[in-house]
Amino acid sequence: MITINEIAKLVNGKVIGDGAVKVKGISALAFAEANDMTFAFDRNSLDEAGRSKAACVMFSDDVTDYPKTILKVENMKLAMTVLYNAMLEIIPPKKGTIHSTSVIDETVQFGKNVSVGPNTVIGSNTRIGDNFVVGANCTIGRNVTIGSNVCLYPNVTVYDNVIIKNNVTIHAGTVLGADGFGYIPKDGKIYKVPQMGTVILEDNVEIGANVCIDKGTFKDTIVGAGTKIDNQVQVAHNVTLGKNIMIAAQTGIAGSSSIGENTLIGGQVGVADHVKIGKNVKVGAKTGITGSVKDNASVFGYPSREASEARKLHGLLSLLLRNRRKIQTLFRKTPE
Amino acid sequence: MITINEIAKLVNGKVIGDGAVKVKGISALAFAEANDMTFAFDRNSLDEAGRSKAACVMFSDDVTDYPKTILKVENMKLAMTVLYNAMLEIIPPKKGTIHSTSVIDETVQFGKNVSVGPNTVIGSNTRIGDNFVVGANCTIGRNVTIGSNVCLYPNVTVYDNVIIKNNVTIHAGTVLGADGFGYIPKDGKIYKVPQMGTVILEDNVEIGANVCIDKGTFKDTIVGAGTKIDNQVQVAHNVTLGKNIMIAAQTGIAGSSSIGENTLIGGQVGVADHVKIGKNVKVGAKTGITGSVKDNASVFGYPSREASEARKLHGLLSLLLRNRRKIQTLFRKTPE
Amino acid sequence: MITINEIAKLVNGKVIGDGAVKVKGISALAFAEANDMTFAFDRNSLDEAGRSKAACVMFSDDVTDYPKTILKVENMKLAMTVLYNAMLEIIPPKKGTIHSTSVIDETVQFGKNVSVGPNTVIGSNTRIGDNFVVGANCTIGRNVTIGSNVCLYPNVTVYDNVIIKNNVTIHAGTVLGADGFGYIPKDGKIYKVPQMGTVILEDNVEIGANVCIDKGTFKDTIVGAGTKIDNQVQVAHNVTLGKNIMIAAQTGIAGSSSIGENTLIGGQVGVADHVKIGKNVKVGAKTGITGSVKDNASVFGYPSREASEARKLHGLLSLLLRNRRKIQTLFRKTPE
Repeated sequence: MITINEIAKLVNGKVIGDGAVKVKGISALAFAEANDMTFAFDRNSLDEAGRSKAACVMFSDDVTDYPKTILKVENMKLAMTVLYNAMLEIIPPKKGTIHSTSVIDETVQFGKNVSVGPNTVIGSNTRIGDNFVVGANCTIGRNVTIGSNVCLYPNVTVYDNVIIKNNVTIHAGTVLGADGFGYIPKDGKIYKVPQMGTVILEDNVEIGANVCIDKGTFKDTIVGAGTKIDNQVQVAHNVTLGKNIMIAAQTGIAGSSSIGENTLIGGQVGVADHVKIGKNVKVGAKTGITGSVKDNASVFGYPSREASEARKLHGLLSLLLRNRRKIQTLFRKTPE
Repeated sequence: MITINEIAKLVNGKVIGDGAVKVKGISALAFAEANDMTFAFDRNSLDEAGRSKAACVMFSDDVTDYPKTILKVENMKLAMTVLYNAMLEIIPPKKGTIHSTSVIDETVQFGKNVSVGPNTVIGSNTRIGDNFVVGANCTIGRNVTIGSNVCLYPNVTVYDNVIIKNNVTIHAGTVLGADGFGYIPKDGKIYKVPQMGTVILEDNVEIGANVCIDKGTFKDTIVGAGTKIDNQVQVAHNVTLGKNIMIAAQTGIAGSSSIGENTLIGGQVGVADHVKIGKNVKVGAKTGITGSVKDNASVFGYPSREASEARKLHGLLSLLLRNRRKIQTLFRKTPE
Repeated sequence: MITINEIAKLVNGKVIGDGAVKVKGISALAFAEANDMTFAFDRNSLDEAGRSKAACVMFSDDVTDYPKTILKVENMKLAMTVLYNAMLEIIPPKKGTIHSTSVIDETVQFGKNVSVGPNTVIGSNTRIGDNFVVGANCTIGRNVTIGSNVCLYPNVTVYDNVIIKNNVTIHAGTVLGADGFGYIPKDGKIYKVPQMGTVILEDNVEIGANVCIDKGTFKDTIVGAGTKIDNQVQVAHNVTLGKNIMIAAQTGIAGSSSIGENTLIGGQVGVADHVKIGKNVKVGAKTGITGSVKDNASVFGYPSREASEARKLHGLLSLLLRNRRKIQTLFRKTPE
């Protein structure tokens, strides 16, 4: 529990009312329970929040005659984010429980305070750290290594040998460590290349729903510390992602490519295999990258160009479209 | 059960043979059981159908000397569709059964005639209406609200607080209500923005396999009544989809965008965040939309253009390609 | 078990040390057990391999004074692939076990040596051949037909009636046989077209993770023998894929299209509905195909062009960009 006065300091807000009131969580109005901080974007929802169970309401304006404590902040999204992350460090994890229907091999080693949901399966020789929370119907293979403060939502599949470090969150339906797509066509048959590496997720990684990260062929597929991956992203075998990268939904990174730290990648981007993308790069949505990209570049389009060039190209195409009769005239007048 | 004479009226068909024969379902030849209506596209499969268990065969031509009743229709696909939808309203649902291996919290409230498949997990305070059918290995969270006549295929994940209204079907592997992709990079760290809204699916929605629909940040992500979503589509946080929209496979709608009713969206389309697409819009496959689109527009390409302009651009590029020597000549002759 | 001398013959390698040593499997250094063949790419990892449990090390150079047998090969990837595929035929399958938490209908017919993982569900009248291995938390429907030597990883969903032939591998989270996306909009409502066909996977197919292959409408969706499909691919209803096709990640094939044998399809490709792609075609990544493609063609871009034309177009656009001032000059001088 944390007092509203303490929260006000954290988020640089102003308390209107009783700042000694204590808060345990944050939530939208519809789901607010006693001891929750909720929020309102307009007077109507402010009135509604006044009648809710919440202990306190975040609002962006001054309020008088209100039945609950108000925390006035300038930027609600930023304030909520600061508060949420602070609470993650303050609030102790819930006491762990292992559901009776889970199927856990007798050789599995657990840290303290572990929660395992119904019907989740964990294979032999897997080692798991403290404060682990895994939802229902997950499958974790053999010889998997999982650090502390890891959360897996339902229906996640972790293949044998995968390594997940600390403070990692993985959303539902995601698959870690499936075989990379490697084949050698020969004499009318297609031979499978054995995939012998694994997947390593470094600290503070968050991965969305229905993502696929394949194991490496000879070496490992690596997701660097702090990197965040959105839903339905595909990371192929042998890829190395650096630190603090953000990859939006439905992007695909082909085999053996690498991406440097702090790079931002839009949605539905495609990165070809064996490509090196530098640090602090910005890649626009739907861009297709087929060659290396230097540090600090901004790229866009397919095949990709420097973003300002790509914008000029778009303008140029519009100019050509408007003048297509003139183009026909020019071609008529010009010999081969 | 419904007689072939009754079906003939529904689909505007002609009965050849005994119209009093009763039908209970429709199915392909390979899976046809007694009391089923099957179909044939040519004389060979018609002969085969004559030897099947089916009660009646839909065909598009006149037939004589046939061992079963024929229902002659002009448009097989339309006739089957009309029949299928009529039967949905006529045929009573199968008697519900709750499998002994399912894990259902004691606080869950069920309507009448509920079927729960093996190993499916339902969390506390979830309320479910009549005629619910959920397949095996699904995970439904806490405080979820589900209406009547809802069907979930296997391996679906529904996060806490999601609201599903009536007559909704969701195919396997789909994830509803995972966290939206919201982060604030600050001082070399990436802070997670708390995702506090939920997902609301209105009546008569159908969602394909391995789809992701994220919960909202402060408000909810909404899928309007009658909207149909194909496989592997991504709907990000705070999106509002109107009524009767159709979205083909692998399309992604980024955060906080909205789409008006009756809009048709092709496959692999990308819609940027905070964009407003109007009603009755047609969006061609693979289009990338980065700005607002007016009602009744047709758009195509990336960045998207009015569809007729995009077609002209494609023709113009072909013209330029054919004349690239002339272009070089023109550039040579033209000063900077 | 196979001796290193025998392996050397298979992969055209040279034995340095004791060739009578026997090998049971292949694996990366980190996971190597006694009787495993491991590999090293440089002197450092060669030293490490010398201290590992592995029986033998594959290396691409001569080695003296080494504690284990070395198998020297020129192309490690090719040698490992030959060895892996040879071992698949030599090594007998592990003895099957059916986990006590699986839920198997009493009418299911099994071949010899079947392994069923925890919490996997198999419906009535399903027939399964020899050496079947299915991971945890899978759901296999009713009346499914599965041949010999089929492997399903965890969390796979197989709908009713699907047919899987021999030597097929399917990775986690994949959905086979969900309803195709077929609707008829009429009078302000959207009517669902019944999907009555199924999915047929021929021999030697491998399918990645989180793939969707929909059942057919009237006929079946077919994946030809030897075809390999990468993660997150979408194959819509009524598609026919020929033999030995390779389809990279995140590609989508729309309804009723067909693809000829030996065709290679890159990642994030889109194929429109009712399109015919020939044999031995090469389709570049992110290409969009809207019309038929002849045998042996190479295509690229969207809308797609012959690959050499598409490359020329890219060069031409760069030329136009560099000369955009000249273009403006030309347009100024040219009358409408």
